[in-house]
Amino acid sequence: MAKIVECVPNISEGRDKNAIKAVADEVRNTKNVTLLDLSSDESHNRSVITFIGSPEAVLEASVKLAKKASELIDMTKHKGEHPRMGAVDVVPFIPIKEMTMDECVALSKKAAERIWEEVKIPVFLYEKSASGAHRVNLADIRRGQFEGMPEKLLQDEWAPDFGERKIHPTAGVVAVGARMPLVAFNINLETSDVEIASKIAKTIRFSSGGFPCVKSIGVKLEDKNMAQVSINMTDFTTTPLYKVFETVKEEAERYGTKVVESEIIGLSPMMALIDCAKYYMNLSEFDEKKQVIENYLI
Amino acid sequence: MAKIVECVPNISEGRDKNAIKAVADEVRNTKNVTLLDLSSDESHNRSVITFIGSPEAVLEASVKLAKKASELIDMTKHKGEHPRMGAVDVVPFIPIKEMTMDECVALSKKAAERIWEEVKIPVFLYEKSASGAHRVNLADIRRGQFEGMPEKLLQDEWAPDFGERKIHPTAGVVAVGARMPLVAFNINLETSDVEIASKIAKTIRFSSGGFPCVKSIGVKLEDKNMAQVSINMTDFTTTPLYKVFETVKEEAERYGTKVVESEIIGLSPMMALIDCAKYYMNLSEFDEKKQVIENYLI
Repeated sequence: MAKIVECVPNISEGRDKNAIKAVADEVRNTKNVTLLDLSSDESHNRSVITFIGSPEAVLEASVKLAKKASELIDMTKHKGEHPRMGAVDVVPFIPIKEMTMDECVALSKKAAERIWEEVKIPVFLYEKSASGAHRVNLADIRRGQFEGMPEKLLQDEWAPDFGERKIHPTAGVVAVGARMPLVAFNINLETSDVEIASKIAKTIRFSSGGFPCVKSIGVKLEDKNMAQVSINMTDFTTTPLYKVFETVKEEAERYGTKVVESEIIGLSPMMALIDCAKYYMNLSEFDEKKQVIENYLI
Repeated sequence: MAKIVECVPNISEGRDKNAIKAVADEVRNTKNVTLLDLSSDESHNRSVITFIGSPEAVLEASVKLAKKASELIDMTKHKGEHPRMGAVDVVPFIPIKEMTMDECVALSKKAAERIWEEVKIPVFLYEKSASGAHRVNLADIRRGQFEGMPEKLLQDEWAPDFGERKIHPTAGVVAVGARMPLVAFNINLETSDVEIASKIAKTIRFSSGGFPCVKSIGVKLEDKNMAQVSINMTDFTTTPLYKVFETVKEEAERYGTKVVESEIIGLSPMMALIDCAKYYMNLSEFDEKKQVIENYLI
């Protein structure tokens, strides 16, 4: 079995199809990586590029992609609804197969070093790769956005981890780091009362005393006339999907409604789901590495 | 994504380690196949060899394996507890990835033809590849065993699908066919009363009016002092694991006991488990081909 890493760079271009294609082509033209998804948002003026492959190949593709983004995207002219600080805004590395988080952190630091050396964009390490607690959250690093970065880099606590205390004139700065795969997990309620969804979201999310590695808000689905508990599971190995699902089910009953369905948006690691099967069927001593046929094919 | 087939030949040798190794080496030395498991049983005097790979490579390995088994195993001297009719007793082909059952049937017929042409063992097609209803079940084909085959082949309804109506003098005959992956799924009860497990097994198995593609017996686990409902799921896409699990849970309650745990023995396709996660969390519109990251790696 080979080591596999996922990389999900966000670039600050969601409108110019040629530029987006040229950046994504850097991934397409790298050996031993596979482009899984390319999603562009015009109002955010931002694209999310998802690819996987061997650690060496993913590293290579991430640096080439950063270089191409820095050539084609001019942040002095960028407008969009989503907060951003660089042409390539954030480059997360995610362990998928036979990779420890430590190995992923080491890989992200190699990428950070090369992005500075070869593309001359100053780099902040974030999430599991962060060099200090105040740099773990992307939102904290990005506060002030592209326009505020020249001044921010001069503050005592905001020297970049790689590079000068001076932004790349058109490509800004970038956050590079390692994190767990994120699962976007939504649970739809029978009620259309978004207040109930918001109360349940508050119960489960970590920031208001709920489960670790769970972010959540209540939203209204106008087309379905349903309230939804919209959840980001930032580490399903810490808080598994079934724990959140069962809690939402109980809470929904408490408010006199019930769960109609759940959904996963985008990609999920196989184990986020197999963990749930193990839980619900009290499956004991199941070793997915040895017992899931597909694991021998990867 | 590439087509992947599994093949699980059973050979009539479980004691002579050198012979078993030599037969398994035919798989190890074939390109584009991976040996997943080799299990030998001395009292059965039988070994089960599990491998996967591209259809062409799996075909190649299966024919080479049959040839080597025919050279090293002499059925005129074979003794063992398990019923058997040939040196290579049965060769099932199982669709794992991007293969339809029809393609798997076609592959099994190619293997059958080559085993006759190149190894001179007469072949019965069985399961999904069977040429008649009386040849679907392996047990029906194998009845009479090696010793009874010379006479059986002369009966009107038992002409082999490939080859002469005369056994290979030392290698007998072989059954070749396509079938779904089998999941060995056991459910352990709090009670030690094997009668309850047997009653539940009778309720769920197809042969006594239960679910299609479910075989089941009640057994006593002496070491755990528990009764077990021991189940073979012969097609989890027809009857899924959760349906059997939930029924056993309800039946256990009816008999005043409960389910303690379940277990999967050996290999399982990823989807047998992901289907359960989808069921228990009411996961809607989940497309595993597009949404499970690992599916892009295979």
